[in-house]
Amino acid sequence: MTKGRLEAFSDGVIAIIITIMVLEFKVPRGAEIASLRPLIPVLLAYILSFVFVGIYWNNHHHLLQAARTINGRILWANSHLLLWLSLVPFVTSWLGQNLFAPWPVALYGIVLLLSGVAYYVLAQTLVVHHGKDSALAVALGRDVKGKTSVALYTLAVPLAFVDARISCLIYVGVTLMWLIPDSRIEETLQK
Amino acid sequence: MTKGRLEAFSDGVIAIIITIMVLEFKVPRGAEIASLRPLIPVLLAYILSFVFVGIYWNNHHHLLQAARTINGRILWANSHLLLWLSLVPFVTSWLGQNLFAPWPVALYGIVLLLSGVAYYVLAQTLVVHHGKDSALAVALGRDVKGKTSVALYTLAVPLAFVDARISCLIYVGVTLMWLIPDSRIEETLQK
Amino acid sequence: MTKGRLEAFSDGVIAIIITIMVLEFKVPRGAEIASLRPLIPVLLAYILSFVFVGIYWNNHHHLLQAARTINGRILWANSHLLLWLSLVPFVTSWLGQNLFAPWPVALYGIVLLLSGVAYYVLAQTLVVHHGKDSALAVALGRDVKGKTSVALYTLAVPLAFVDARISCLIYVGVTLMWLIPDSRIEETLQK
Amino acid sequence: MTKGRLEAFSDGVIAIIITIMVLEFKVPRGAEIASLRPLIPVLLAYILSFVFVGIYWNNHHHLLQAARTINGRILWANSHLLLWLSLVPFVTSWLGQNLFAPWPVALYGIVLLLSGVAYYVLAQTLVVHHGKDSALAVALGRDVKGKTSVALYTLAVPLAFVDARISCLIYVGVTLMWLIPDSRIEETLQK
Repeated sequence: MTKGRLEAFSDGVIAIIITIMVLEFKVPRGAEIASLRPLIPVLLAYILSFVFVGIYWNNHHHLLQAARTINGRILWANSHLLLWLSLVPFVTSWLGQNLFAPWPVALYGIVLLLSGVAYYVLAQTLVVHHGKDSALAVALGRDVKGKTSVALYTLAVPLAFVDARISCLIYVGVTLMWLIPDSRIEETLQK
Repeated sequence: MTKGRLEAFSDGVIAIIITIMVLEFKVPRGAEIASLRPLIPVLLAYILSFVFVGIYWNNHHHLLQAARTINGRILWANSHLLLWLSLVPFVTSWLGQNLFAPWPVALYGIVLLLSGVAYYVLAQTLVVHHGKDSALAVALGRDVKGKTSVALYTLAVPLAFVDARISCLIYVGVTLMWLIPDSRIEETLQK
Repeated sequence: MTKGRLEAFSDGVIAIIITIMVLEFKVPRGAEIASLRPLIPVLLAYILSFVFVGIYWNNHHHLLQAARTINGRILWANSHLLLWLSLVPFVTSWLGQNLFAPWPVALYGIVLLLSGVAYYVLAQTLVVHHGKDSALAVALGRDVKGKTSVALYTLAVPLAFVDARISCLIYVGVTLMWLIPDSRIEETLQK
Repeated sequence: MTKGRLEAFSDGVIAIIITIMVLEFKVPRGAEIASLRPLIPVLLAYILSFVFVGIYWNNHHHLLQAARTINGRILWANSHLLLWLSLVPFVTSWLGQNLFAPWPVALYGIVLLLSGVAYYVLAQTLVVHHGKDSALAVALGRDVKGKTSVALYTLAVPLAFVDARISCLIYVGVTLMWLIPDSRIEETLQK
C-alpha cells in the first residue's frame, strides 16, 4: 500500500485543524482598538496551538518521508493521532477564553499529552512494519524529544491546579524545544 | 481518465467533513469542569462519526487503490457518496444534542445507511468498469462486511422508535466490526 | 509551468466550497421530526448547489486533463472562476431560507451565470495557450452545453421577478442536462 | 527533503483561508435586495482579500516551482507565512464591518505587511539554501515588486489615522500591481 493518500489526507485534516481555529476570533462590534483587548488571550492561545499543530505536521512529514509502505494498522494509528489533534481547536478556544483557569489549562494539556502518545504509537507502528534496523527506526532513534514532551505534559496537567501559569510555561517551553532546528535528525533522515 | 484527482478531491471533502464536525463543540461560558458536562454526548457522537467517516476514507482508499482508470459514471457515483457523507456532521450534531431520542437516532442511521448504499453503488460501478475478473472485483469479493453493515443499519433505523439505545449499540457494533483489521482483504489487494 | 498545483489548489477550494454549505444546516432545538421541516428548502437548495459545484469540479477535471501546461493568465482565469464559485454557499443559504422569493432566486442565478462565464473565459484562455488545433480545443469543440447553460441562466434571472418557480425549474433543468453522461466528450478526451 | 508535501500543505491552508472568509457573509433575515446592502462593504473587503491571498498562492507557486529541495528552516519560514495569512479572514471581517474606520484599516494593513515580510523571509531562506547563483535566486532577482509592496503597506498603516480611504486605495493599488501579468519573471522561471 502506498503512502501518498495517507499523506494527502493527513495534510488535509491538519491544514483544516490549523485554519478553523481562526474562526474563534469573533469579530468585535466596535471599531476601536480597545474592542480587540479581549482577543489578546485568544490570539496567544491561537499562536501556541498553531505552532503546536505545525510541529506535528513537520514531524509527521519527516516520519512518513522515512516510511516506504504502510498497512491498515498504520492507517488507524494515523487516524487516532488526527482524532486528538482535531480536538485542539476546541481546547484552544476554551483556553483562550479562560487563560490561566485550572480546568481549561489542564484539558489543553491532556489533549497535547494524548496527541503526543498517539504520535508515539504511530511511530512505533511504523517501526514494527519497517523493522528495527530500517532507516526509519534508525532515524527515529530513541526519540528523546518525543518522550520528554510526553513527560513534561504529564507533569503540566496536575500542575494546572497548583498554578496554571506554570503549566502554560511548560507548554510554551516544549513548543520552543521543538522549534529549535534539530539538524542531526534531518541529516540522518536525508541519508 | 486517471484517478489522481478523484482521490485528491475525495480526500479533501472527507478531510473537511471529519474536521468541521468539531465546530459543533460550542465552547462553554464557564471555566469549570461541570460546564463541559453537556458536551459529553456531543463528544461521544463525534467520536462515533469520526471513526465512521475514517472507515469510509480507509475503504475508499483501498477501493481506489485497486482501480486502474475511471470514467464519468464513476465520478458521479463518487460524488453521490460524498453527498451522503457530507450530511454526517449535521446528523451527528442533532444526535449529540439529543442522545437516545428516537428521531435523531433514526435520521443518523438513515444517513449511515444511504452512505453504505452509495458506497456499494460506487464499488459496483468500478467493478462494471474494470470487469468481473479484474483484480478490483476479486479484491472486493462478495463484500460481506459491506452488505452486513447495510442490513444492520436497515434494522437499526426502525428500532430507534422501540429503544434508541439498541440502535446506537448497532451503530457502535458495525463500527467496531470495521475497526478489527481484516488482513485477508488487504493481502488480496496487495497482490 | 506544470498544472499539478493548479489542480490541487482548485480541488481544495472546491472541496471546501461544497462542504461548508452543510454548515448552514442549523441544528434544530427540538428532537421531533417536525423541527426539521424548516430545513427542507435548505436541503433542496443544498442538493442543487452540491450537484452544481460537483459539475464544475467534473468539468474542471476534464478541462485540465486535456491541458498540457499553464501560464500566469490561466492561473488568474482559474482564480476568477473560484471567486464566483466561492459565493455559491452564500446564495444557497439565502435561497434555502427564502425559496421562491424573487431576489434570492435571481441572485442565485446571477452567481450561477457568472460562474458559467468565468468557466468559459478559463476554457478560452486555455485554448489560446494550447492553440486552436490542440487536443484541448478539439475536445472542447463548440462547447454547446456551456453556451446553452449561460443562455438559460441569463433567461432565468429576470424571470425570477415574474415567477421564481420557473427560474428554479431552469436551474434544475440545466443541472440535469449536465448530469446526463456525455460520452462523446469523454471519448474525444481519452484519445 | 522533497517539496511535494510542503506544497500540498500550503495549498490546503491557503485554500481554506480563501474559502472560510465567505462564512462571514451572514445570510440576511429578509428576502429583499435592501437587506443585502450592509453586505456591500463586506463583499468589497472579501474580494480584496481573495485577490490578495490569490496573489500569495500564485507567488508561492512560482517560488516553490523554482525550488529543488527544502530543509527544516524552510518548513518553518513557510509556516510563519501561513500564520500571518491565516489572520487575513479575521482582519477582513473587521474591515468589512467597519470600512474606512482607522483601526480596522490599520490592522488590515499590518497583517498584509507582516505577510509580505514573512514571504520575503521565506524567499531569502530558499535563496540561502539553493545558493546565490541558483536558478531560484536568479528568477527572484532583486524582488522589486515585493519590496515596493512592503514599503507601500508600511506607509498605508499610519495613513489610516489621517484618512483611511488613502490606505484602502494603497491596498487596492498594490493588489492591482500584482495582477498585471509580469511576463518577464515567468519567462525567467521557465528557463
